[in-house]
Amino acid sequence: MTPSKPTPAAERRRQNQRPEGPPWRQQMYDVIFEADTPAGYGFDIGLLVAIITSIVLFSLETVEGYEDAVWIKNGEWFLTILFSIEYVLRLICSRHSFRYALSFWGIIDLFSVLPSYLAFFIGDSSRSLMILRSVRLLRVFRVMKLWRMMNEADELSTAIWRARNKIVVFLTVVLVAVTISGSLMYHVETLMTNVDEQKKNDTESDFTSIPQAMYWATVTMTTVGYGDVVPKTVIGKMISAALILLGYSLIIVPTGFVSAEILGGKAVGKEPDFMCDVCEATGHPVDAHYCYRCGARMHHA
Amino acid sequence: MTPSKPTPAAERRRQNQRPEGPPWRQQMYDVIFEADTPAGYGFDIGLLVAIITSIVLFSLETVEGYEDAVWIKNGEWFLTILFSIEYVLRLICSRHSFRYALSFWGIIDLFSVLPSYLAFFIGDSSRSLMILRSVRLLRVFRVMKLWRMMNEADELSTAIWRARNKIVVFLTVVLVAVTISGSLMYHVETLMTNVDEQKKNDTESDFTSIPQAMYWATVTMTTVGYGDVVPKTVIGKMISAALILLGYSLIIVPTGFVSAEILGGKAVGKEPDFMCDVCEATGHPVDAHYCYRCGARMHHA
Amino acid sequence: MTPSKPTPAAERRRQNQRPEGPPWRQQMYDVIFEADTPAGYGFDIGLLVAIITSIVLFSLETVEGYEDAVWIKNGEWFLTILFSIEYVLRLICSRHSFRYALSFWGIIDLFSVLPSYLAFFIGDSSRSLMILRSVRLLRVFRVMKLWRMMNEADELSTAIWRARNKIVVFLTVVLVAVTISGSLMYHVETLMTNVDEQKKNDTESDFTSIPQAMYWATVTMTTVGYGDVVPKTVIGKMISAALILLGYSLIIVPTGFVSAEILGGKAVGKEPDFMCDVCEATGHPVDAHYCYRCGARMHHA
Amino acid sequence: MTPSKPTPAAERRRQNQRPEGPPWRQQMYDVIFEADTPAGYGFDIGLLVAIITSIVLFSLETVEGYEDAVWIKNGEWFLTILFSIEYVLRLICSRHSFRYALSFWGIIDLFSVLPSYLAFFIGDSSRSLMILRSVRLLRVFRVMKLWRMMNEADELSTAIWRARNKIVVFLTVVLVAVTISGSLMYHVETLMTNVDEQKKNDTESDFTSIPQAMYWATVTMTTVGYGDVVPKTVIGKMISAALILLGYSLIIVPTGFVSAEILGGKAVGKEPDFMCDVCEATGHPVDAHYCYRCGARMHHA
Repeated sequence: MTPSKPTPAAERRRQNQRPEGPPWRQQMYDVIFEADTPAGYGFDIGLLVAIITSIVLFSLETVEGYEDAVWIKNGEWFLTILFSIEYVLRLICSRHSFRYALSFWGIIDLFSVLPSYLAFFIGDSSRSLMILRSVRLLRVFRVMKLWRMMNEADELSTAIWRARNKIVVFLTVVLVAVTISGSLMYHVETLMTNVDEQKKNDTESDFTSIPQAMYWATVTMTTVGYGDVVPKTVIGKMISAALILLGYSLIIVPTGFVSAEILGGKAVGKEPDFMCDVCEATGHPVDAHYCYRCGARMHHA
Repeated sequence: MTPSKPTPAAERRRQNQRPEGPPWRQQMYDVIFEADTPAGYGFDIGLLVAIITSIVLFSLETVEGYEDAVWIKNGEWFLTILFSIEYVLRLICSRHSFRYALSFWGIIDLFSVLPSYLAFFIGDSSRSLMILRSVRLLRVFRVMKLWRMMNEADELSTAIWRARNKIVVFLTVVLVAVTISGSLMYHVETLMTNVDEQKKNDTESDFTSIPQAMYWATVTMTTVGYGDVVPKTVIGKMISAALILLGYSLIIVPTGFVSAEILGGKAVGKEPDFMCDVCEATGHPVDAHYCYRCGARMHHA
Repeated sequence: MTPSKPTPAAERRRQNQRPEGPPWRQQMYDVIFEADTPAGYGFDIGLLVAIITSIVLFSLETVEGYEDAVWIKNGEWFLTILFSIEYVLRLICSRHSFRYALSFWGIIDLFSVLPSYLAFFIGDSSRSLMILRSVRLLRVFRVMKLWRMMNEADELSTAIWRARNKIVVFLTVVLVAVTISGSLMYHVETLMTNVDEQKKNDTESDFTSIPQAMYWATVTMTTVGYGDVVPKTVIGKMISAALILLGYSLIIVPTGFVSAEILGGKAVGKEPDFMCDVCEATGHPVDAHYCYRCGARMHHA
Repeated sequence: MTPSKPTPAAERRRQNQRPEGPPWRQQMYDVIFEADTPAGYGFDIGLLVAIITSIVLFSLETVEGYEDAVWIKNGEWFLTILFSIEYVLRLICSRHSFRYALSFWGIIDLFSVLPSYLAFFIGDSSRSLMILRSVRLLRVFRVMKLWRMMNEADELSTAIWRARNKIVVFLTVVLVAVTISGSLMYHVETLMTNVDEQKKNDTESDFTSIPQAMYWATVTMTTVGYGDVVPKTVIGKMISAALILLGYSLIIVPTGFVSAEILGGKAVGKEPDFMCDVCEATGHPVDAHYCYRCGARMHHA
């Protein structure tokens, strides 16, 4: 969250995006889009406070006793106007206003203010309450503005994007495991509860359907374990314990894969294939100029 | 899930498995077994949709209000026929039809369609309900078809297979820990609850037997923590907290072992297959010039 | 917790902090602040016992039946006097007594004894009970003294400090995810429960407000999963299961980042402090002969 | 669990422990203590079955309806006699019988049989029921025999032993965190519940004492999350959510440390300081005979 020396890539990107034209527009761009001037840093701090306040107000609205508090309504309008001004300023000082408006962040910025105005025009009639609520819910995307403020956001998005294959693999593995173990447990619990009922033991199975059993399996495999759906028969508990252990053992493997993906390209900070032409030593840092072994000049591909 | 450049090994395997004979059989093989042609990719997408739909229908059948829905029955039959056609086509265009039929995936493909036909022949008489249900449950293995569609499936299976020793170690450690801590807690809770009862404190121990206590220990050690079985006496809670911490500390170690196994062969800059031609030692650094075991010159591939 | 050979840095720091003046002051310093003499080691063991006893007494005070136990009160005063003597001795034998008193550990040492004296002067009148309680709570900081006794405390603090950016990133990611998924689930559960109510199904939503839903999301995403707030509608459970899986997949990424940060500087064979004399580049492989940045010959220490 | 080629160290240890004297004694030693002959492998399989059966019987004894089953009693005696024979045979064919009897595994083997005989002599009088139960509980240590059968047991014990410092650090960090957050939550929940009570909201705090609150903190920090103790006030939930996130972030750091410890010395399988005398290359495998870079003979320290 603190300003840091921009990387060359960020510097180049910035030069491409800086608007042309009058100096005031360039200065305004630096304040709003960058964080490495005192004014820009101050702007970011202000925005941070506004976003956090907005989330707090947004949440408080639904708490019993605060539904109709006037100060929340007023605060909400004050913040909407602030975010509107921010949106307009970003539009003005972007190099290509239209392109900004259609970009991911442009849409998020629009979503930050639109719901309040829409809710105002739809009115408070009880008939449109449902639509109103859904529209107002969109204000939650204001929290996404926090993401933009992180210096590491780019790096993190890249890492998630790079690990997308592994995440799909992970989700597929979980889906297969959840479906099979959910169906099995539904069958076992339904069967064994019926047997127990004949013994005048009047417990009822929590596994009322396969989707419910799959919900149980998801909650269990991720080790969340709410406890709202639990096996109640002895056989059910035994199979459940075995499934937990098996699932836990198997899930370590794809989890390790994702970690390996991140560690592979990151922690070690070395390019395994970055080889010295002279002595064929590998494993140089990505920014190496000289071979660490023979001292020869490195040639980047 | 997207087509990617096949590895040399996959390419070789494919050449071995491609059927001989008329070109239509080879083309059909490419569509059904491979994903790197437009038709093969389309086939895979279609199969993916069919599998997901099948799981949804299969689950919905057990939800209250949908048990006898006609559209589910019809959809089920439609999918069964689709999967039957797929099975027959795979049989036809495999190089060795019989070998395919007996392979793991051949059996899974058979299991995808057999239960529906069996259920049809067994009939809906209430007497055979239990057998019927168990048979129909086998349809869940359709979800395994998802696994085959993953490019990474091979890699993941290999990793799990390579980590099997570590998983057995992990399970043994857990079994020892679960047995000891379960028995201890059963003893403590039963004893202390009796003491409390004499003080007219009428709580009842959740630890009704050692298997129940072992179920508790499993659920706790894997950090699932349902909360259906919890210690209720003060001493029980203290020992339980100590066991949780101890178990948590100890479980990090085998978990780290499994991670190390995956990372060892993958992330860190060693080539597991970089083998010395003379003594067949493996695990050399990627930039090794000499075999560390016999001292012979290494030849890079 | 055992005495180990001090690192050169610790040795230098120690020389800077050792008091000047009469030998008895230097010897006392060695006993109290260091652990590598028999007397110093004994002092540390005694302190360890005192701290653990103090935590036990402090906790027992709140247990039903022990509130007014005289032996707890007496033990408490005994420990307070011990800690007071320790504080005074530390003040005396520090090189700069005033600087110690204002340091982090000086304040912790003061907090260890002040509350007891304050509580004595405030008196036991029922009116000031609340203030009294809050003041006495400060004694819990005695447990921080354990931290100082760890040899690894410095290393760990450094690691946490070095990973602070990653932790902020992690918290921001969680905050964004918690806000969005909490709001979504509040909306869905409230809506669907209303629909169910019209069907005479009288369950009540646990998601009474957005803060409550955000509490649920936090408890769920960290896989704690108390189960006091759970989705009860079918749609709610489905979305919840999807959110759990998504959140679990996404959280692996920043967790991996933090691990990578720790591993990056620690486990993998790089010496973070292996610095080039010419250009001061760090992070060379342990067997580097030439600086990878400027090509100068490296001199091993 | 399968026989594998013994490492040189294991081979040497074996030569030292093999008994002298008549060949039958040496052969018996190989069968009982080693697993690399068919007979020894068969012995191990038999022992494995006996241990698992013993655990099953031991657990079943406490299940309602099986307390007085004769077949369990008989099976128990049968196994006790088997284990007794095993113990005597181990005594006979050990090189130093007395040293074996006093070793860790010797004591475990004794504990496997002693309780049954003791229970027999103490008798079934209701007076000595408590002692009897505690004595019989000791049979649970039979499960430890599983540990000895693992090839990886040595390696794992070494890893745990090597990570003991990190585990102590981890436990200290958790103890500090648990004490501080437990006391804080006890204070907050007690206070806020009192405030709520004045509003006629008759919920009762789950945080009845500081030990109870510390139990909550332990269960929460390890992400077990039973849900038997949960915050019920709004402020309590907010602070609790903050503590969970903070605790979760902080706990990643020592967890990463333990992983780093394991990875550092293990996964990479290299000794960072194992340097070639000729070219000063480091990072050789621990069993390297030749330098991988210059091909020179390696000299082990």
